[in-house]
Amino acid sequence: MLGGEIVGSTGHLISGVESLDEADSSKLSFLGNKKYESQVAESKASIIIVPDGFSAEPADNQAFIKHKSPSDAFSMVFELFAPEAYRPEPGIAESAFVDESAQLGKDVHIGANAVIMANVELGNGCIVEAGSYVGPGVVMGKGCRLHPNVTVRENSIFADAVFIHSGTVIGCDGFGYIPGEDGHKKIPQLGIVQIDSNVEIGSNVSIDRARFGKTWIKEGTKIDNLVMIAHNVVIGKHCFIVAQVGIAGSAQIGDMSQLAGQAGISGHVQVGAESTIGGKTVVISDLPDKSVVCGYPAVPLKEYFRNQAALRKVPDLLRKVRDLEKRLDEKD
Amino acid sequence: MLGGEIVGSTGHLISGVESLDEADSSKLSFLGNKKYESQVAESKASIIIVPDGFSAEPADNQAFIKHKSPSDAFSMVFELFAPEAYRPEPGIAESAFVDESAQLGKDVHIGANAVIMANVELGNGCIVEAGSYVGPGVVMGKGCRLHPNVTVRENSIFADAVFIHSGTVIGCDGFGYIPGEDGHKKIPQLGIVQIDSNVEIGSNVSIDRARFGKTWIKEGTKIDNLVMIAHNVVIGKHCFIVAQVGIAGSAQIGDMSQLAGQAGISGHVQVGAESTIGGKTVVISDLPDKSVVCGYPAVPLKEYFRNQAALRKVPDLLRKVRDLEKRLDEKD
Amino acid sequence: MLGGEIVGSTGHLISGVESLDEADSSKLSFLGNKKYESQVAESKASIIIVPDGFSAEPADNQAFIKHKSPSDAFSMVFELFAPEAYRPEPGIAESAFVDESAQLGKDVHIGANAVIMANVELGNGCIVEAGSYVGPGVVMGKGCRLHPNVTVRENSIFADAVFIHSGTVIGCDGFGYIPGEDGHKKIPQLGIVQIDSNVEIGSNVSIDRARFGKTWIKEGTKIDNLVMIAHNVVIGKHCFIVAQVGIAGSAQIGDMSQLAGQAGISGHVQVGAESTIGGKTVVISDLPDKSVVCGYPAVPLKEYFRNQAALRKVPDLLRKVRDLEKRLDEKD
Repeated sequence: MLGGEIVGSTGHLISGVESLDEADSSKLSFLGNKKYESQVAESKASIIIVPDGFSAEPADNQAFIKHKSPSDAFSMVFELFAPEAYRPEPGIAESAFVDESAQLGKDVHIGANAVIMANVELGNGCIVEAGSYVGPGVVMGKGCRLHPNVTVRENSIFADAVFIHSGTVIGCDGFGYIPGEDGHKKIPQLGIVQIDSNVEIGSNVSIDRARFGKTWIKEGTKIDNLVMIAHNVVIGKHCFIVAQVGIAGSAQIGDMSQLAGQAGISGHVQVGAESTIGGKTVVISDLPDKSVVCGYPAVPLKEYFRNQAALRKVPDLLRKVRDLEKRLDEKD
Repeated sequence: MLGGEIVGSTGHLISGVESLDEADSSKLSFLGNKKYESQVAESKASIIIVPDGFSAEPADNQAFIKHKSPSDAFSMVFELFAPEAYRPEPGIAESAFVDESAQLGKDVHIGANAVIMANVELGNGCIVEAGSYVGPGVVMGKGCRLHPNVTVRENSIFADAVFIHSGTVIGCDGFGYIPGEDGHKKIPQLGIVQIDSNVEIGSNVSIDRARFGKTWIKEGTKIDNLVMIAHNVVIGKHCFIVAQVGIAGSAQIGDMSQLAGQAGISGHVQVGAESTIGGKTVVISDLPDKSVVCGYPAVPLKEYFRNQAALRKVPDLLRKVRDLEKRLDEKD
Repeated sequence: MLGGEIVGSTGHLISGVESLDEADSSKLSFLGNKKYESQVAESKASIIIVPDGFSAEPADNQAFIKHKSPSDAFSMVFELFAPEAYRPEPGIAESAFVDESAQLGKDVHIGANAVIMANVELGNGCIVEAGSYVGPGVVMGKGCRLHPNVTVRENSIFADAVFIHSGTVIGCDGFGYIPGEDGHKKIPQLGIVQIDSNVEIGSNVSIDRARFGKTWIKEGTKIDNLVMIAHNVVIGKHCFIVAQVGIAGSAQIGDMSQLAGQAGISGHVQVGAESTIGGKTVVISDLPDKSVVCGYPAVPLKEYFRNQAALRKVPDLLRKVRDLEKRLDEKD
């Protein structure tokens, strides 16, 4: 059906699709990126779609489908397994407020009690669900979706197919003050947030507008829930930013990087492309491309766990050194 | 009045109720669970309700009330001290949107600008406050309450007396993608969230729907603010999940466990029942029942603090070992 | 124009204002507080407004403006550079719900689908943007602003010029239960939240009401996004609370303190005035005034980084001690 070559055992009953590392034997998965080749051998998926030239053999009770584009083949399978997720129909709810200056494309949905302010532009097929707020001058491309109760502040710019989940706030003022004897003076936050195509952002995320210029989330990046992204941050293409990560002002994250949960990036730090930042790590200085780090301050992942293991031996070490000192004293 | 026996000094003026460890001399408390017996001796509460067979003596200026059910007695006292907290009256606000297919029980309150979508079922006495959104197909039992501006996504299932505070999002899509050369492919998130009876969830919490099956919060569990609970997580009965905790996909937390603030649980990890996870701890592998851990990776709490104390001696230790090496060199 | 004395090179083209440590050569900054004198020498700002008696010299290509009140002078400059940020006009949207018992001052704005409950009092010039909820009995002074989709629960009290960003929840119930065999009993949360003048609070923040009495944010304090503030916490004047900080119940933070991102303060802890708490630090016991700490448990900042550097030498140290033991054994 997919037009590929089947290698290995056949007749698997598949209940859904899953990533290589999370799949069990009821799942189909695919190798979409060479970077993850090593995961194929360990994957429990019954069927894995691999690229034509892929040389390894499937395990027992496993099949590979060799395909010239695993990614395209996967999309076809995906369509089969995806039941109808809820998706509002085009139309504007009576209770929604839409400013008369707003420009709405074709087949747009505006949900109950949603608010579309002046000079907003929404591309074809955009969905703004119930209770969401789209501030003055916001511009969205085609097929964007705001789930219920999202807030997009004034002048934010979205490209196509940007998906934002509930409770998230885009374009809040950045945190900037000049301390003074008689109180801190607020630094005006006059920039915007720009979000490129195919970005998805989870729930209860905060992305601040820039002071000047833009806070920028580049194409294809995926952001989990409760993430904090400060003013003027730039996040590269196709990154994964996992839940509760915090990125301080003006930091830059390179393309294809992954930040695990609860990590923190200090202000102005530059993280190189294809880096992996461990959970709860704090990055306080620049990192080269392909860094894999953990801890506070961040060190290479292996070093982190070696250090933590060594730490557990320190109480014993203290005792040993006291013994050595005694023994040497006795020799003197 | 409560039908129990009074032991110790009497005539205390009580201004309210408090937990054993937080009470001062103006408070009444109770021992509802043997696990906390040791807290009785240290509690400053003027009056403590204890079980009939409780053997210890009250302190000076303290009274025990021995009762066959401290929990029932406490509930009676509670009624006396609880002034009228704000509670909306039954009725449906004019500005609310209620889909005509929704089924509402008796004495339901729907607040201003709240949104009730198609095929929702709300049990008797449910309260949906202003601005809250209840998605298509959501089913709630009796006496549930959504505070203002809550979002409950499609097909979530609540039992009775589930309380959700403002800004919280139930049933957001889980964070699941398969990485590909031309962008990450979203894994469909087709499961639901199920929340059992007597669960209370704080503000700005995110609980993701399952990929397949359900994300499940069991009976009596209490969740604080800004907590992240990922797809397919299962949290047992009567747990405490303190603020800013993050629990990654498919992790399981045993009954009666306590997770202190800002802790993180890695994906697929199983935490045994009655465990205590310290603040900011990261649990990266399974833990047996009754674990008490801290650190990253998590180690027993006492070991954590011993290791941290030892760490502060390492700079000194480095110097001592250099000295020892010198002294030995001189002997050679 | 500002009425001060210019020292150093002139003719700088300035595009905006910035703090001393973040300014580049296109920015003007100011020294508003002696505490930051050391930042002047390192600042890249082209123009710095300093107090009249300030003795240091500007760098090459830099000018100082000496002024009797740098703070006033800065305010004047600020006005010049601040373009029109979006600000709604006075007026009440048709779709807003305003209870008839609410008392609104002059020139108040109530946005689309906002909700003002019974007995609310809003001072002159208050702005309640779209979708925000102001609970029964809330009282606000003059010039307060709630951005869209804010929730302020019943009986909260704001002084003048309190600014709250989207998604934030003020006055949620505190997290308090008494554990019992048959389920945890909720401790009633009957206090309020009081916020003094000139406080600004970011997006998706949670501030819980007190059990009794008040949770209290004092004058001039600035709070970033996704911060958790528990019941009965008191935060002093002019503090900075950076993103994702969590402060547990009844903790107190002294005036002019700074808590960096993702820090945690345990319950009942008192942090002295003018303290600096490092990112991700956990404070588990009281700290004197002017503390500068990091780590878990918190230690002085320099010690933290020295300990972390020492930790990286422990694996080597373990080997060295083994060697020493061998050498001594051979001597025996």
